Amino acid sequence: MFENKERTAISDLGEFGLIKHLTTNFKIQHETSVKGVGDDAAVLNFKDQVLISTDLLLEGIHFDLAYVPLMHLGYKAVQVNLSDIYAMNGIATQITVSIGISSKFPLEAVEEIYKGIELACNKFNIDLIGGDTSSSKQGLVISVTSIGHAAAEDICYRNGAEEGDLLCVSGDLGGAYVGLQILEREKLIFLENPQLQPDLEGKDYIIERQLKPEGRRDIVDLLAQMKIKPTAMIDVSDGLASEILHICTQSEKGCTLYEEKIPIDPMTYETARELGLDPTVCALNGGEDYELLFTIKQSDYAKLKNDVDISIIGHITEKSAGCNMISKSNVSHEIKAQGWNAFKG
Amino acid sequence: MFENKERTAISDLGEFGLIKHLTTNFKIQHETSVKGVGDDAAVLNFKDQVLISTDLLLEGIHFDLAYVPLMHLGYKAVQVNLSDIYAMNGIATQITVSIGISSKFPLEAVEEIYKGIELACNKFNIDLIGGDTSSSKQGLVISVTSIGHAAAEDICYRNGAEEGDLLCVSGDLGGAYVGLQILEREKLIFLENPQLQPDLEGKDYIIERQLKPEGRRDIVDLLAQMKIKPTAMIDVSDGLASEILHICTQSEKGCTLYEEKIPIDPMTYETARELGLDPTVCALNGGEDYELLFTIKQSDYAKLKNDVDISIIGHITEKSAGCNMISKSNVSHEIKAQGWNAFKG
Repeated sequence: MFENKERTAISDLGEFGLIKHLTTNFKIQHETSVKGVGDDAAVLNFKDQVLISTDLLLEGIHFDLAYVPLMHLGYKAVQVNLSDIYAMNGIATQITVSIGISSKFPLEAVEEIYKGIELACNKFNIDLIGGDTSSSKQGLVISVTSIGHAAAEDICYRNGAEEGDLLCVSGDLGGAYVGLQILEREKLIFLENPQLQPDLEGKDYIIERQLKPEGRRDIVDLLAQMKIKPTAMIDVSDGLASEILHICTQSEKGCTLYEEKIPIDPMTYETARELGLDPTVCALNGGEDYELLFTIKQSDYAKLKNDVDISIIGHITEKSAGCNMISKSNVSHEIKAQGWNAFKG
Repeated sequence: MFENKERTAISDLGEFGLIKHLTTNFKIQHETSVKGVGDDAAVLNFKDQVLISTDLLLEGIHFDLAYVPLMHLGYKAVQVNLSDIYAMNGIATQITVSIGISSKFPLEAVEEIYKGIELACNKFNIDLIGGDTSSSKQGLVISVTSIGHAAAEDICYRNGAEEGDLLCVSGDLGGAYVGLQILEREKLIFLENPQLQPDLEGKDYIIERQLKPEGRRDIVDLLAQMKIKPTAMIDVSDGLASEILHICTQSEKGCTLYEEKIPIDPMTYETARELGLDPTVCALNGGEDYELLFTIKQSDYAKLKNDVDISIIGHITEKSAGCNMISKSNVSHEIKAQGWNAFKG
């Protein structure tokens, strides 16, 4: 990827030099960031309660450098993590980023990752306040911890759904998974015939859903404007089925989901069909959409019923009714989590 | 390591089952931990300022499973991280732990790591509040983020040292590095002749310094009891030389360090000599001792001069004087950081 560009050995800079080099562009913006990179620990100052979430991304498990550009990887690593803060109905303000990278990678490769991190930080107004860089003897490793805050009364847990609450989801689902299938297909074609260029024409939206997901801070803002506090909320990282079950299990409730209400973009739908996949299954089990799934009181229905970016896909029932999806042909199926499992395959 | 024991495949549990299984023993103890494992993010509630530090530990770079028992690895991963909170003069209260592990490892191996994490948490009164487990196609990956707190006026940064301040260090130095050399030597002997048992007799202390370091929370407590607030503080992870230079650079000062004052345990000293190493160089450049290096006002000298666990090893000078060590033979040498570089070798 860097054959024709300048190559600088990372080891020439050393660990401290590298961190300094990579983080000089990052400016501390938040009042809550008392001290960022450069001491033993970062120092933060919140009046609200503090939200903390962390994710570990490993090459070959969570991403494939054959088709993920490094800048996108940096961007996505941040977004995926911020999404967890938004899923608490919180305001994300800081991240730490630790990277393990082969010493064979040139400095320019790490810079690409940090460009993506910087883009995400600038777009979502996030301070980079710490981290760690190290050589890795194996693949590329990225660990992000995100920090945010919210007033205690605004925080949405997974366990607050009540019988009769409406089940809502932002955006559309299944696109990231179908996008991944296209990237995997083109990778196999490329490996068999390196002369062929990847055929991604007309697939921009779903490729972007996979490579460049966006945490839904806008939905958190929108809910605040509408004066709606969800009774429960989670982000869709492992697939709709898995996330619905998390809310129902933790709330000790059941639910009814309507297949016809699940929002699926036409490009996702058509491409899934082309690939011989059921679009609903892609939405239920595909994962990585990073939309927000939440429950609201029925009395809040009028406030968001006309919002085109939020779909009402079902409702919460008593626990004994179980978790079921009513199919388009009006048959009830039990919802099972078959989401992505990092220990299989 | 697990040939004769029960082997349970991690994939049988899945990611959520695994996290639940591994974290059931961990009890939330701190009032500041509002919500731990089990939601999109942990929720914390501090009146003080919040301290956050993160470290990424990679197999083959930061540890070698040939001689590091998994339980020790879990314990050390936590300690190394807490050490950064103590170095801010803070109280460590929570950690998140993310682990990437080959799916070929049995569940019992991950349990060993978590036993070590649990030991460290219990000993230092730390709540495990989140994390992530994943398969790794490469080696074992451990990422720990530690969270603590302190009143704004108690926090010690690296940049507060003033001319005339005394340079102090807790415990003794160089042991972890010399212990590592012994472990490396025995590993080579074992690889050449697997019949031979490792000869670690009489080396317990330095082996323990390497395998089972302890963050110096006791020193933070002691300083509070003595009513001493260090003017600057850092933990010794990369070697005394590197840490002294961090304090001097960030404080824009110089220093004089006296070789004869550097605390070196007799076992460290003798073993270094046996191995043909200069004990002072081991202390200066070895790293991983996780002692606290700090500066105090001269007026605080009387309070700690009789404490056997704290050595006064030099003093802070004006910047133009540079950073120098006066050798036992009374020669001045410029201090240079040759500490451990994760991108070399």
